[in-house]
Amino acid sequence: MTSPSRGALRVHVGPDAAPPLVEAVHRGGGSVVAAAAAEMFVWDNFDPETLRPLLHDAVRWVQLPSAGVEGWLASGMVDSSRTWMSAAGASAEVVADHALALILAGRRRLTEAARASSWDPSLRGRPLRGARVAIVGAGAIGRALIRMLEPHGVEVTAVTRGGAQVQGAARSLPATAVEQVWREAEVVVLAAPATAETNRLIDADVLARMRPDAWLVNVARGSIVDHEALAEALAAGEIAGAALDLTDPEPLPDGHPLWREPRALLTPHVANPPAEWLVGLAVRVRENVERIGSGHEPLEVLDPGRGY
Amino acid sequence: MTSPSRGALRVHVGPDAAPPLVEAVHRGGGSVVAAAAAEMFVWDNFDPETLRPLLHDAVRWVQLPSAGVEGWLASGMVDSSRTWMSAAGASAEVVADHALALILAGRRRLTEAARASSWDPSLRGRPLRGARVAIVGAGAIGRALIRMLEPHGVEVTAVTRGGAQVQGAARSLPATAVEQVWREAEVVVLAAPATAETNRLIDADVLARMRPDAWLVNVARGSIVDHEALAEALAAGEIAGAALDLTDPEPLPDGHPLWREPRALLTPHVANPPAEWLVGLAVRVRENVERIGSGHEPLEVLDPGRGY
Repeated sequence: MTSPSRGALRVHVGPDAAPPLVEAVHRGGGSVVAAAAAEMFVWDNFDPETLRPLLHDAVRWVQLPSAGVEGWLASGMVDSSRTWMSAAGASAEVVADHALALILAGRRRLTEAARASSWDPSLRGRPLRGARVAIVGAGAIGRALIRMLEPHGVEVTAVTRGGAQVQGAARSLPATAVEQVWREAEVVVLAAPATAETNRLIDADVLARMRPDAWLVNVARGSIVDHEALAEALAAGEIAGAALDLTDPEPLPDGHPLWREPRALLTPHVANPPAEWLVGLAVRVRENVERIGSGHEPLEVLDPGRGY
Repeated sequence: MTSPSRGALRVHVGPDAAPPLVEAVHRGGGSVVAAAAAEMFVWDNFDPETLRPLLHDAVRWVQLPSAGVEGWLASGMVDSSRTWMSAAGASAEVVADHALALILAGRRRLTEAARASSWDPSLRGRPLRGARVAIVGAGAIGRALIRMLEPHGVEVTAVTRGGAQVQGAARSLPATAVEQVWREAEVVVLAAPATAETNRLIDADVLARMRPDAWLVNVARGSIVDHEALAEALAAGEIAGAALDLTDPEPLPDGHPLWREPRALLTPHVANPPAEWLVGLAVRVRENVERIGSGHEPLEVLDPGRGY
């Protein structure tokens, strides 16, 4: 890691130059400049093609706008000639809040209640207390969710790539041992990045091994789930339900069986709504501008080999 | 408070003699006897008329099955000739869990999402973080809810009859000052007993003063809300939504406008499902049998003048 050449770090915020990000650069000690004069880019658009024409050799750092970066990796632009940073963790609490909303809605059968047009006292759910909750991909979102789950008296199993102990989890497992959670978990929360390893991790085989009273909650990426297999598993009663903020394909086409499935709750990729996304990203931009400006390693440097 | 006559407290569990309650009497040091031989009744039915024919002069204590006791008070059976106990607080965590599910479902617009049959990215909600939450009637349920809200970084105003400081609340107000919360709260949780004072507390006038982005959540009693006024307020956009586990009348009749209201979520009086109710009541029965058996004041003695 080398320091910026001299004076304030020269940062271009584009393509939309969202005011909270411009302000964050200033607060981080950077100066906001035109693209051609920049040594760092802060990008506030999710389409890699908006960045490609403006990128030039003097740009040494690029702050991307999202936690999920598979589109950027697929674009071929991410190489070792400069440092790329994702926004992983910048909106962790906001996404965890949505995950908890989906978990509780599942346990309490709120989807069926919302669709009822008359009194049906059979729509009884269960509280979360005592439930076994598995978080697959327990990074920043998972850690935030564990804090929110703490007063509910649940038993959390945290699965991460390496299996390091995750604070607040009753048990921490490496990805190689993820099989252990399928039979036990009453709630499986997907919070892992989209990588080759997580692609269609939840397939017909895994769904068949899950508990019949289990809820699947996805706040990560649609590619982690085989949605045809999921629709079949729900129709067959293999699991109790699924609450998905993301799907594959996304949007899920009209007429897809999951739209009609009584125990599927779909939200339209809104765990991290735009207003909250910008607030979280601004905090990260300020931090990374400060870090780079003072010669330190920025947060969440992309590792293309790892995939996030 | 006088002690039981001699030996183990003689307790009748009826009319269904639910096994967890029978076991709780034994664990509390009581003996389980026929109705005619009992000095204490533990009642596991919600209809006062099931108790009336069996009650006799030697019964000095009656443990009722529910937190809400307005039906028992209306029955005329509750007088000072013996000690009556409600089950207030026995299921506080279970009901608070449902309240949190309804709060998050409201903030995240899950009712509209559940009803959608195609992709609608405009269905964006908001996280709970930073919200102003008012708990009207902050007893045991309210205190349990405050513990569950703690990791969400919200600002809680707790309203109780007397206004004593409620642990974890940023502000505690007496019922006489409840007017202060209508204009400020983004979430109003009703957790108060059904009394003359709370009857139709939420009427057209109050709804008109609430914030247009406010959600009303009721886990207490339907009588606290004027449901015709609520349907009109929702249709007019005066508040953002309502999530109700209880209504008045209950069940809400087919065709009532709240069934069709896009931002109303109705659950069929299931915050405290039967299995959980029995677990919570059993804990309370054991505690009260122990207390009475050792000459101590039992928990939640009814005060007919107060109404709970």
